Amino acid sequence: MTQPVTNAQMMQECLEACLACLRACEVCAEACLDEPDIDMLRECIRLDRDCADACALTARLLMRASALHPEACRMCAEACAACAAECERHAGHHDHCRLCAEACRRCEESCRRMAA
Amino acid sequence: MTQPVTNAQMMQECLEACLACLRACEVCAEACLDEPDIDMLRECIRLDRDCADACALTARLLMRASALHPEACRMCAEACAACAAECERHAGHHDHCRLCAEACRRCEESCRRMAA
Amino acid sequence: MTQPVTNAQMMQECLEACLACLRACEVCAEACLDEPDIDMLRECIRLDRDCADACALTARLLMRASALHPEACRMCAEACAACAAECERHAGHHDHCRLCAEACRRCEESCRRMAA
Amino acid sequence: MTQPVTNAQMMQECLEACLACLRACEVCAEACLDEPDIDMLRECIRLDRDCADACALTARLLMRASALHPEACRMCAEACAACAAECERHAGHHDHCRLCAEACRRCEESCRRMAA
Repeated sequence: MTQPVTNAQMMQECLEACLACLRACEVCAEACLDEPDIDMLRECIRLDRDCADACALTARLLMRASALHPEACRMCAEACAACAAECERHAGHHDHCRLCAEACRRCEESCRRMAA
Repeated sequence: MTQPVTNAQMMQECLEACLACLRACEVCAEACLDEPDIDMLRECIRLDRDCADACALTARLLMRASALHPEACRMCAEACAACAAECERHAGHHDHCRLCAEACRRCEESCRRMAA
Repeated sequence: MTQPVTNAQMMQECLEACLACLRACEVCAEACLDEPDIDMLRECIRLDRDCADACALTARLLMRASALHPEACRMCAEACAACAAECERHAGHHDHCRLCAEACRRCEESCRRMAA
Repeated sequence: MTQPVTNAQMMQECLEACLACLRACEVCAEACLDEPDIDMLRECIRLDRDCADACALTARLLMRASALHPEACRMCAEACAACAAECERHAGHHDHCRLCAEACRRCEESCRRMAA
């Protein structure tokens, strides 16, 4: 028999997903700024940054168990979805984009569950 | 004849409302932490902080005209509404709460317009 | 023979210390806002918040390996030292203060090493 | 006879300089991401972002009159100096870089005064 997942476990899991996504976005943006094909990565840098900012706020609200966290998770899921879609376009060429897309998709899923 | 309001004007107005609300929340939280009746102001300090964080992110997304700004405005409107409702309960006793409630209501209204 | 510690290892360790301290400060501030003796905890709430903000910025600069990280670490070490000193005064009464003080001291030490 | 400048006036002036610099950095980074010569602007985008983050934190600490503000101003002055130096290299080609450099120099000067 599986144990029911508590809200505290869901919040902890979502916090970890946000911090992992924040880091992947920071790393991806920095790496994009060094790539020879930066011309193709403009939107990626932009979305990495928005997504990092959304993840950072959401992570802090989860840490303090703020009543605002469902609204932040809703926004964060949208930021993650947009960033993942762009990073997936470059995932074949750049490992940092592939890793970022994966972290964004996990964070998106976790945030949607919290926002529901 | 009145001029139609452009999107750029709406974003500028919303940015100013977010910065004014951010500042009012920071000032209110600091002042609450010095009040003799701090026991009554616990929730006010808490909501001031969440609202300040929401306003800070939303302001930055508006500055960079991010595509994420409608989602941030939606979250920010909820943060402002919650903070205003609490501050209004203390508005008769504390000027900083009255001023914060007013800034929150203006920001809430402006953010709802951007999120629509 | 011990291996020399690389700069990348030091940055990783400092990043982890900043995130742990950020979380301990958020948890401590939230818990203080619920304590019956909140009157004694005003400065603790205040310093928790400043320290959390300093740790959050420093963590993000370390994630992106920013050239600004030594300056951020210097500021963060001061924020951690001030927060730890206050939390230590309440460590006998509140577990969240004791845990926060410990996280702050670890982060302070790690940030001083990075700033050197 | 000139009036002596009070600390509250200096803090208010520094807060305004930080907010103006934050906005100029956000606008410059966004505009750089659209420029045909983005290849020359990699470091500019990077420093705009660090400087924006430093200004955002410093502005909030000034709003709440935090005891940590001198340390934040010291860090912010360094961030502004680095961003200004880079933006000045592109000031002849891009108005957003020229305006950003000017805002950075004003903020740097104001922050150095606060940190002294």
